[in-house]
Amino acid sequence: MEVTNRYATIKHHIDGFPKESDFELKSVTLSLSLEAGSNDVIVKNVYVSIDPYQLNRMKKFSSTQMASVFALSLSPGKAIDAYGVGRVVESTNPGFEKDDLVVGVIGWEEYSLVRRGDMLTKLGTTEFPLSYHVGILGISGLTAYGGFFSVCKPKKGDKVFVSTASGSVGNVVGQYAKLLGCYVVGCAGSKQKVDLLKNELGFHDAFNYKEEPDLKSTLKRYFPDGIDIYFDNVGGKMLEAATDNMNYFGRVAVCGVISEYTDAKTLAGPNMLNVVYKRITIQGFLAADYMHDFADFISKTSDHLRNEQMHVLEDISHGVESIPSAFIGLFVGDNVGKKIVQLAEF
Amino acid sequence: MEVTNRYATIKHHIDGFPKESDFELKSVTLSLSLEAGSNDVIVKNVYVSIDPYQLNRMKKFSSTQMASVFALSLSPGKAIDAYGVGRVVESTNPGFEKDDLVVGVIGWEEYSLVRRGDMLTKLGTTEFPLSYHVGILGISGLTAYGGFFSVCKPKKGDKVFVSTASGSVGNVVGQYAKLLGCYVVGCAGSKQKVDLLKNELGFHDAFNYKEEPDLKSTLKRYFPDGIDIYFDNVGGKMLEAATDNMNYFGRVAVCGVISEYTDAKTLAGPNMLNVVYKRITIQGFLAADYMHDFADFISKTSDHLRNEQMHVLEDISHGVESIPSAFIGLFVGDNVGKKIVQLAEF
Repeated sequence: MEVTNRYATIKHHIDGFPKESDFELKSVTLSLSLEAGSNDVIVKNVYVSIDPYQLNRMKKFSSTQMASVFALSLSPGKAIDAYGVGRVVESTNPGFEKDDLVVGVIGWEEYSLVRRGDMLTKLGTTEFPLSYHVGILGISGLTAYGGFFSVCKPKKGDKVFVSTASGSVGNVVGQYAKLLGCYVVGCAGSKQKVDLLKNELGFHDAFNYKEEPDLKSTLKRYFPDGIDIYFDNVGGKMLEAATDNMNYFGRVAVCGVISEYTDAKTLAGPNMLNVVYKRITIQGFLAADYMHDFADFISKTSDHLRNEQMHVLEDISHGVESIPSAFIGLFVGDNVGKKIVQLAEF
Repeated sequence: MEVTNRYATIKHHIDGFPKESDFELKSVTLSLSLEAGSNDVIVKNVYVSIDPYQLNRMKKFSSTQMASVFALSLSPGKAIDAYGVGRVVESTNPGFEKDDLVVGVIGWEEYSLVRRGDMLTKLGTTEFPLSYHVGILGISGLTAYGGFFSVCKPKKGDKVFVSTASGSVGNVVGQYAKLLGCYVVGCAGSKQKVDLLKNELGFHDAFNYKEEPDLKSTLKRYFPDGIDIYFDNVGGKMLEAATDNMNYFGRVAVCGVISEYTDAKTLAGPNMLNVVYKRITIQGFLAADYMHDFADFISKTSDHLRNEQMHVLEDISHGVESIPSAFIGLFVGDNVGKKIVQLAEF
């Protein structure tokens, strides 16, 4: 028994903005018979996560640069691993049975052969829509949870600024901050997104950064008493403007640097005089650092969802052929909330 | 009874590099009779500290910039407060008697009238040379102590890089790191300073940054296994190169930003992709944040001095008229170690 496995890949390493011609759809024949004792698992993928950080893995790195990214760098023509959920179609792994729903590292493809079942977890509950496990209950949610609670060390009343606030992580950070009793302002790139932040997600305020020529003054206007926490997804000028408006002992969690993903040149950094005199802490982090908080994160976030205290922002495209445009869309602001591609019914 | 009090001041706010013509020596007549009950103290200054950060206070700030510096900004023609030691010549404050040796905030002047004795402490011991209390046992030492132990959170074996390593704070950080069992490399701006770091202060290695056109490669050479801690006194390109060579979970203590003190334009910042992927923490701090550690700091550092485990680097000029050139010299690397001006015999 075999199936045709279609997958999205890069034709070559990418420099700058990604475009449709950088990608191609390929297919291979995948045998569904597994070697006994291999502990391998074959998953039919249902939902797969589309994230901006993948662009870093698509670049060509010299060996001295960014060893950590380099180690994960992608090869043209090869399948691209990504977080998602699916259903087990074959397993020689005692931990997984046919038809189990699983979540973990699968790929931008219709089926994934997961060696030894590594990085797969059985979904314990189907209380929530399956797609939630890719976003708000997946790595995006954990990134928001670890980054906000552990890196930003928030307390009630803190004034919180979130960039790319309608994105997969930003919208969740803003909602956690609101629930904790912080004052929350987000920025996004369209009127529709700004309205969504204010009217649906309960942000105290929001603005369209594209309409603000002077970000320092803008932030001064939205934060007359200064910013205590900045959850940074973009870097560059926004980081500079935020540190300029930061209060003493302010904290910056650096979650992403979208302004640098598509632009290799070094950008202006934060004013280090501000960093010294205001005793600002700027800390980079990855969700992987907070895996030990996963159970807590799921438990608290599930409670919020049950109590209808959080809103789920998802943006779902369909079919493996839609992956390149879904991915490219992240860099021009097409997505609203968590970008997901659905690969199959379940 | 009155005395002539000579003091060094700025003629106008300073923009860019300081030069002799920005300063002037003025004198006023100071009455030595104090109003009973005022709690005021008059100190005859012996040693006064000369520090680069004072340049920030000499600039003209717009009201939205750097509120914390602005609050402390200096007025042309007025006396300039600074840390130092002296002897009490008059006191109506029950805490101080004539001839007491005191340490605290005095000024770039021959006598200081200290209202209510604020920010003055009686020197409990004369075990060490008096000048030590301006440098290694003063604010420079506390800056090194708080910045290294509390901000950098070092452990034995950590690989530590210190910039301006022969400066007042850097040389002490390097020595603390060595005593803790870290691997320590410093950079400085002359062969003489590099030799001093290696041969007198016990740094494992040191280099002259002026002879290194490619700082990233230089640091790669001195830290083949990466940097765990960077104690930053300069910002700019050195900070960028250090983060490039940093290990996972590396820590940067931002103590000063000399590269920005004389240059208002925003400089290149650290590569934020490095900050995210390597989970680097960059934290600004001021010695004032560690005043609660002062007793610990004095006790431990005094022990090291008694055991001859630390070397004291002082660079002393003489006379109030030497203050401007002593200060200007900081920005061209004239000083070796803590820059102090001696104003009187004691």
